[in-house]
Amino acid sequence: MGRSKPVTLIAGGAGFIGSHLCLRLLGEGHEVICIDNLQTALPSNLGRLKGRPGFTFVEADIVQPLPEAVTARAGEIGRVYNLACPASPPLYQIDPEHTMLTNVVGTNNLLRLAEKSGARFFLASTSEVYGDPEVHPQQEEYRGWVNCTGPRACYDEGKRAAETLTFDYARTGRAEVRVIRIFNTYGPHMSPDDGRVVSNMLCQAIQGDDITIYGDGTQTRSFCYVSDMVDGFVRLMEAEIDGTEPVNIGNPVELSMQELADEVVRLTGARSRIVYRPLPIDDPRRRRPDIARAKALLDWEPRVPLREGLTQTYHWFAEELGRAERVKAA
Amino acid sequence: MGRSKPVTLIAGGAGFIGSHLCLRLLGEGHEVICIDNLQTALPSNLGRLKGRPGFTFVEADIVQPLPEAVTARAGEIGRVYNLACPASPPLYQIDPEHTMLTNVVGTNNLLRLAEKSGARFFLASTSEVYGDPEVHPQQEEYRGWVNCTGPRACYDEGKRAAETLTFDYARTGRAEVRVIRIFNTYGPHMSPDDGRVVSNMLCQAIQGDDITIYGDGTQTRSFCYVSDMVDGFVRLMEAEIDGTEPVNIGNPVELSMQELADEVVRLTGARSRIVYRPLPIDDPRRRRPDIARAKALLDWEPRVPLREGLTQTYHWFAEELGRAERVKAA
Repeated sequence: MGRSKPVTLIAGGAGFIGSHLCLRLLGEGHEVICIDNLQTALPSNLGRLKGRPGFTFVEADIVQPLPEAVTARAGEIGRVYNLACPASPPLYQIDPEHTMLTNVVGTNNLLRLAEKSGARFFLASTSEVYGDPEVHPQQEEYRGWVNCTGPRACYDEGKRAAETLTFDYARTGRAEVRVIRIFNTYGPHMSPDDGRVVSNMLCQAIQGDDITIYGDGTQTRSFCYVSDMVDGFVRLMEAEIDGTEPVNIGNPVELSMQELADEVVRLTGARSRIVYRPLPIDDPRRRRPDIARAKALLDWEPRVPLREGLTQTYHWFAEELGRAERVKAA
Repeated sequence: MGRSKPVTLIAGGAGFIGSHLCLRLLGEGHEVICIDNLQTALPSNLGRLKGRPGFTFVEADIVQPLPEAVTARAGEIGRVYNLACPASPPLYQIDPEHTMLTNVVGTNNLLRLAEKSGARFFLASTSEVYGDPEVHPQQEEYRGWVNCTGPRACYDEGKRAAETLTFDYARTGRAEVRVIRIFNTYGPHMSPDDGRVVSNMLCQAIQGDDITIYGDGTQTRSFCYVSDMVDGFVRLMEAEIDGTEPVNIGNPVELSMQELADEVVRLTGARSRIVYRPLPIDDPRRRRPDIARAKALLDWEPRVPLREGLTQTYHWFAEELGRAERVKAA
């Protein structure tokens, strides 16, 4: 890729998408420094990374001043990816103050590092900046319908504020930036108990528990397989574009939660019943990306069909839960 | 008022509205600690306060850990007002990073103090959380139309994030809170060069310069006189309500920028021409508060008519600019 500074810093690199990004870049011969506070990362994700050539792990929280192990290497860092923040509502709501500070203070600490390093900065933003959208599908120009006073706001408004900071660094010439808006993503390395719908349903099916639908099941989502997502990350980071606009990355195939539950039952052959629970506050009713910008700028579109991705994820969860059982039994 | 802890902390207390709030509370016999970084405050505002019985000034930036002069008195503080942040677009855009951190880190530092003190916390939020609104007038339930990637976002998104933090402290039982959304306010103690329309036009008229209208003059605002605003502050802070909803305070009388310019010319007898300049990016076209909630909860409504308020403000600016001239000449 012709980078003069070969080191990539990945904040949140032990997390679900982060660990895939680390593996991808290590596989391409890049040196990777992963900084993660291990707040929600699965230990097995880090286990797959540790010891690989070119991989350095730094346990730290980006809300605090960045540790010496990172700052000492500022001169070598050419790319900074910020994926640090729990993304699952039950997890990011445990400590809403910390969620907000991770997005604002943490992002700012990494932006200052990028400025000092002359590195390109990448923010993993989210479709949550659109809130409960009034238009479908969502284009990047849509300004969103976010309740800034509600229990999801620590994440949604935190990410909006992180985008603001990032574009301000670009506008004032302090850093070259890329901002991605991630739509629902699934795949191996998700935490079985992260509380999101794909992991919930697959784990319930594997364990023979009832499969939960929140609400009546008519609300829709669109799910992107993680390898497609990571491919979008790298394309956006490396694209020679001006970077002053956010880019949606996600799968535009929309399905209802009822359809997802039915697919999970079919795929896993589970005998689980489907049960219905009340919808959480401010849960979006529909979410689907318009990916015209990603297609035009990055020649990107998702390749992995839902059934294939769900099958991969199912096998991974079955193994992960089996391992957890064996650990418990030992 | 039956407060067991009589000290009120006012962050941004040397600013335009803050200095009026200090004067009002001192006049009612309260002890006031004012913390201000003097980033945009007029020196004459602080001059009017210093030396008054019960008044303590601490020069500090709330983005930094709060100084000993404040934390040492945590046990006495029963009320914390957060008015700290430049509110004029040209001023808050000078250092967008600092504007964001003032609203997020600064607000959080004051919330932590309120938690430690057991004090009631008051956030001066803003109608800017509504962005360029699609509904008129704006009710508190309206979620806004804010561009989180634009040059005004450091303030607009910063305030939205400050609201989020504040309501999270309330939701998790860490502090009792009040959140006000301030609509355009004017009056004595405004900075002549703060770049907002009332100060701009009055100062241009007084100095015999052309009066500038940005855009074609059809965009509207509604202007609340500062004594009405401060009365809304105190009523909301002292109201025995649950405080978990923001409250609009502003004057619902809407007028166009052309009407305002005409009124300024009439009032000042200026011979100024009115000139038109391009509208800045993301400037809202209309803004008018729905104050039904303030009426119902606080029995509040504005009392000072525009002509009376503008006259008071005009006399004050004439004196302030005269003093500046005398200082320059000396």
